[in-house]
Amino acid sequence: MSILVVGSVAYDDIASPSGSVKNILGGAATYFALAASYFTEVRVVAVVGDDFGSEQETVFRQHGVDIRGIERAKGKTFRWGGSYSDNLNEAKTNYTDLNVFETFQPRIPQEYQDTEFLFLANIQPTLQANVRRKMNGVRLTGCDTMNYWIKGTPKELGETLKLVDVLLINDGEVRMLSGEHNTVRGAEKVLAMGPKSLVVKHGEFGATAFFGDRFFTGPVPNPFRAPALPLAEVVDPTGAGDSFAGGFYGYLAAQPLMTPAAYRRALFYGGVMGSFAVERFGTERLQEVRKAEIEDRFRLFKEISHLEEHPGDKPA
Amino acid sequence: MSILVVGSVAYDDIASPSGSVKNILGGAATYFALAASYFTEVRVVAVVGDDFGSEQETVFRQHGVDIRGIERAKGKTFRWGGSYSDNLNEAKTNYTDLNVFETFQPRIPQEYQDTEFLFLANIQPTLQANVRRKMNGVRLTGCDTMNYWIKGTPKELGETLKLVDVLLINDGEVRMLSGEHNTVRGAEKVLAMGPKSLVVKHGEFGATAFFGDRFFTGPVPNPFRAPALPLAEVVDPTGAGDSFAGGFYGYLAAQPLMTPAAYRRALFYGGVMGSFAVERFGTERLQEVRKAEIEDRFRLFKEISHLEEHPGDKPA
Repeated sequence: MSILVVGSVAYDDIASPSGSVKNILGGAATYFALAASYFTEVRVVAVVGDDFGSEQETVFRQHGVDIRGIERAKGKTFRWGGSYSDNLNEAKTNYTDLNVFETFQPRIPQEYQDTEFLFLANIQPTLQANVRRKMNGVRLTGCDTMNYWIKGTPKELGETLKLVDVLLINDGEVRMLSGEHNTVRGAEKVLAMGPKSLVVKHGEFGATAFFGDRFFTGPVPNPFRAPALPLAEVVDPTGAGDSFAGGFYGYLAAQPLMTPAAYRRALFYGGVMGSFAVERFGTERLQEVRKAEIEDRFRLFKEISHLEEHPGDKPA
Repeated sequence: MSILVVGSVAYDDIASPSGSVKNILGGAATYFALAASYFTEVRVVAVVGDDFGSEQETVFRQHGVDIRGIERAKGKTFRWGGSYSDNLNEAKTNYTDLNVFETFQPRIPQEYQDTEFLFLANIQPTLQANVRRKMNGVRLTGCDTMNYWIKGTPKELGETLKLVDVLLINDGEVRMLSGEHNTVRGAEKVLAMGPKSLVVKHGEFGATAFFGDRFFTGPVPNPFRAPALPLAEVVDPTGAGDSFAGGFYGYLAAQPLMTPAAYRRALFYGGVMGSFAVERFGTERLQEVRKAEIEDRFRLFKEISHLEEHPGDKPA
């Protein structure tokens, strides 16, 4: 089934201990769309400026991503500059030039109206809610947000959360949103705000999914923990969370049934796509990963987390 | 097979958001021994003062723990006071009175000489090495340490690490010992110092095991990640790491063969015993856990981390 992602498409300048790059394709919707494109058809609603090149459009097209919903506005594309020190868990933002993104009003092309999986990447909560309300046929609504909206527009965010089936945020965002230090109690409070399920991203430690009582038709599943891959080099963590979301959502949209088992496997595929994303700068690795590599890495994720399934073991 | 643990036996005063307790039985060797006692025979070498009561001795005896190696010295038992704020990941030490522990010189009773599994809990590294050298028949040497020794006695610790088969430390200790922010590179450096395998404890995010090329006879296994249980209430995190070590080591000592599969299962049992330990103050929960509860929780650990094995799922 097809996915529509609404969010940012950007140019990034990034510096990390592994080097630095300038003017590369970035933005949450970009990482999400490329990661999800390996699993299903993806459509994008975003805005870019008149500096957005055909080279960048080609990246989307080569992955079969439908960009008829990327609006071209007068002015410059959203630009972000960030740098990472040895502690790759935190980005230092050097500048954020919203440019045409500042007045972004998502417009859904008529051809996108039949989309069944909607993902609201990190944009202003009221815009997220408006998009959701325009898309009455969707079967599943996923959502991301950030500290800026949790602090700045809690009421608007609260309205959006009521419309959400899967919220994907990180540990710090759960604490900020719930006011709870404990992840389980925090998750319960967040679920009570509306989302039917919650995926808490733990960076290098993977992710945990929590389920409300209305997500699946059967009994409420226990929380589920998916690992992340221990990597000797993280070149650029930018977009890891969006790539996780794209892998997760892409796999889910490609399944015939929304079962707890499919959801769990989707979390593993999220981790797989996140682990590829950070291996090189920007979307470089996501642009050229092969399907066989994705399956190999999925098996590796199972191997590092499952008691059985270790083909490398010498028979005892 | 039997385990010998050398380390501290103490009285603790502990305060956490869940309440406070005074004069309770604590110490790394205590948590380790109780956790391991559910799997195999455990022997303890430690020192206590003349204030150590028969009530405390009874706790060990009721779990079949051999305490002939607990020496009684003139003076007071080691005492530690700590408190936890809402962020339960960090203890604030209110006081540390080493008392008789300050001049602790581990003496191994003749009856312990046939022990096959040795665990060196967190004590001064030269004492750890001396104990190891006295125990020539051991098949496996496990070891813990802490920032105090990594910073203060790096040379002595370096000598000890050469004698170790399994080092169990946390993320911060890996970073400090290796000088590396990245866990994988840090693990490689730590393994190069001597330990044949390394278990990195991530607190609420579980643990990751790394293997050198001399631990198993077959090919070197990939890293393995074991989960921790998401808990809605952590009453007292004191001793969680020692209980993890006890469950891990106890299960391993009880297996007929040291295989990669046994090692991975042992990590799960480590997590299981750690998760029990934090449910109540001190060793209260570890004292009264039932074997059936341990097996139930082991199954729960599999359920929260394995793609299959979800008996609660409604058939699709």
